[in-house]
Amino acid sequence: MTSSRQGPAVRIIAIGDELLEGRTTDTNSNRIERALGAHAVQVSLIQVVPDREEDIAAALDRTEPGDLVFITGGLGSTPDDLTRDVVARWGKVDLVPDPEVMRHLTERWRKRGLKTSPGAERQAEVPVGMTALTNPVGSAPGLAGPLRGRTLILLPGVPQEMTGLLGPALDWLDGQGLLPVSRESLLWRTAQVAELTLVKRLAGIHDRHRGLSWSWWLTEWGVDLRLAAPAGGESGDELSAAGGEVDAILGRLVYSRKMETPAEVVQGLMLARGATLAVAESCTGGLIGGALTAHPGSSGYFRGGILAYADHVKSEQLGVPADVLARQGAVSRETVELMAAGCRARIGTDYALAVSGISGPGGGTEEKPVGTTWIGLATPGGVCSTRYRFPADRERNRLLTVAAALDSLRRVLESGEDRPPWDTDDSWCRGS
Amino acid sequence: MTSSRQGPAVRIIAIGDELLEGRTTDTNSNRIERALGAHAVQVSLIQVVPDREEDIAAALDRTEPGDLVFITGGLGSTPDDLTRDVVARWGKVDLVPDPEVMRHLTERWRKRGLKTSPGAERQAEVPVGMTALTNPVGSAPGLAGPLRGRTLILLPGVPQEMTGLLGPALDWLDGQGLLPVSRESLLWRTAQVAELTLVKRLAGIHDRHRGLSWSWWLTEWGVDLRLAAPAGGESGDELSAAGGEVDAILGRLVYSRKMETPAEVVQGLMLARGATLAVAESCTGGLIGGALTAHPGSSGYFRGGILAYADHVKSEQLGVPADVLARQGAVSRETVELMAAGCRARIGTDYALAVSGISGPGGGTEEKPVGTTWIGLATPGGVCSTRYRFPADRERNRLLTVAAALDSLRRVLESGEDRPPWDTDDSWCRGS
Repeated sequence: MTSSRQGPAVRIIAIGDELLEGRTTDTNSNRIERALGAHAVQVSLIQVVPDREEDIAAALDRTEPGDLVFITGGLGSTPDDLTRDVVARWGKVDLVPDPEVMRHLTERWRKRGLKTSPGAERQAEVPVGMTALTNPVGSAPGLAGPLRGRTLILLPGVPQEMTGLLGPALDWLDGQGLLPVSRESLLWRTAQVAELTLVKRLAGIHDRHRGLSWSWWLTEWGVDLRLAAPAGGESGDELSAAGGEVDAILGRLVYSRKMETPAEVVQGLMLARGATLAVAESCTGGLIGGALTAHPGSSGYFRGGILAYADHVKSEQLGVPADVLARQGAVSRETVELMAAGCRARIGTDYALAVSGISGPGGGTEEKPVGTTWIGLATPGGVCSTRYRFPADRERNRLLTVAAALDSLRRVLESGEDRPPWDTDDSWCRGS
Repeated sequence: MTSSRQGPAVRIIAIGDELLEGRTTDTNSNRIERALGAHAVQVSLIQVVPDREEDIAAALDRTEPGDLVFITGGLGSTPDDLTRDVVARWGKVDLVPDPEVMRHLTERWRKRGLKTSPGAERQAEVPVGMTALTNPVGSAPGLAGPLRGRTLILLPGVPQEMTGLLGPALDWLDGQGLLPVSRESLLWRTAQVAELTLVKRLAGIHDRHRGLSWSWWLTEWGVDLRLAAPAGGESGDELSAAGGEVDAILGRLVYSRKMETPAEVVQGLMLARGATLAVAESCTGGLIGGALTAHPGSSGYFRGGILAYADHVKSEQLGVPADVLARQGAVSRETVELMAAGCRARIGTDYALAVSGISGPGGGTEEKPVGTTWIGLATPGGVCSTRYRFPADRERNRLLTVAAALDSLRRVLESGEDRPPWDTDDSWCRGS
């Protein structure tokens, strides 16, 4: 989709051999994008380059005067940390020790019983004209300031330190009046629907509102859709009209209108009604519980559960009779409903989710191919279940199972138990 | 660290608005890097750009004749899929329909009861001089071939389709004699050690072997170290000498010398001895079971477990007496050892892992600050446990707990139960 710019172009340079050797993925750029996304500002280029002077300088050369440039990595004290020196040489300015940073570093080392070392002292050096941003979670400070017509923000590569400094960096930009202007946009986060299905359902609205900026993308949980007014335009009315049409089409496929996970939505709904939850997991092996406990506050509603990977655990810990497992199989409506009900009773919760499936690559049969997964839900009012046929590999099938389980519970909590949580036109959902 | 090139420079262009808006991280580049890493080839630049002709063309302009260029994204059938057209215009060649691709697409749609649509037919168009690579898992084919002196490889952006086409693309490169030459390297994967500690321990060896290429990086599980001979050099002897010194220093901090996860190592060790495993998880909420079941074959040793997030589940499902929880607390040696022993007995396995900790941000006290985590292990010979003080935020503390739990089990399986799995100089390990 076409997107237009407003304010300075934002470019990111991520520095580190490890980002180019398949060991580590650059997650810092994503965090910067999210922080800027709160202002609906789109990054226009990310460059990932090795820890080598010529590559770092070439990346700087590819930015333009007026750009806002975030640079991550290479600010530490080891010999391959070149960023500070290369940026100063590229900007043709000196590096001078900042007494305030030096004091902060010395204090930090003293607390840990360490002495200042010459290599470590390099971290206190600041290119002339730039400002040091105190690091709340590590030693290397961030650096912010103008250089050769760009505004540069230098942040450490360790994600925890980068995240800790990102807030102060944005505050600094805001204080300087350099934070780009935002444009109006709407977000829909969907689960249990395939990308192609979503695109088809929205084709008519898309054709009627081509003046808006449309984008959709796959997430860990499903498909997100963002609809934005053109930059600089006055399309607020069209945006809200199109937004209403999208709402009507997507209905309960949408689990949130803001940047939160299905687990956060479930947590909010559970806490609001003071209800409790347990899980009984087979093919996911604990991923549902792991997702539900990712956010602080989960102990307010999540109690625990049973990982029933082997059949004997389904029998002994959840009360699924051995003859049901023998006759219907572990991946069946009977088993998953007994798992859900057994889990709810044994852990003593209001709700229980249960899953049992064939994630692959092995274990599929003609009748139950790889991807066949039953999801069951026990509630104060009874037990329901449905069958999915997920189309992907082991890793993705397991993620789709986690998303479908959390989202099915979300639907019940939102719509009440009188309405089944599944529709016949849900992607992958094959009922009985 | 300095790295040198051999063969063509490899550059990646990842295309997609969603990669620049904080919704999705570019994981395709990582997969390409890993596939090339098998040949010890380092990518020298990744550019992430929006779905916009001028940005895609600018990224192509930043490559150089002789480069091997991987391009991911924008090959589908929706209006924002521009890659095929932009590449052809940039290369000044026509797009022509490939009858073989058209036949494959039509067959694929027919199987699904769909008709060919004009938009979809664009996927069969190939820039003159390039070769279509049949997509084993989706519709859009990959494209490979020479253009303006570069070798271009175009792959879809959906990670599953990208991965499915990567093998055929590398085979095509190999067949053309275009796969870059590899250089010799050694890998160590470590867990339970902080990056700075690892670097300090290796400082002497690093100083004695500065002619080699050193790199280390944080992973989901710990710190990886790679030591490579200089490109084009004849340093095989020095590499193996330095490798021996690294082995002697790192000892059992190393869980693998190849690109596998701690869960895969544990799985290999458990299957080799025909033993079985269960888990009792509190703060991790299921992430340990999730990690253990990530790889096919895990049902050969993993049986399941108890998610004992709430205290009453620790009592009722694992037999931890209520007065132990009241007196010692849920995060204590007594509790975690009773959890491990109770889990082993109830699930009926040879081994059981248990964890209980304070991941944060809330829940910490002066005596038990955030990050305090007990890990217990029940074996056929008894129960042992240790305390960690993890230094990070909730998300990272939980990952560090998963890594420490799996790695502690790995140490016991490798070294036998006579030796405690923990050393006093392990990072974060604070014993009792």
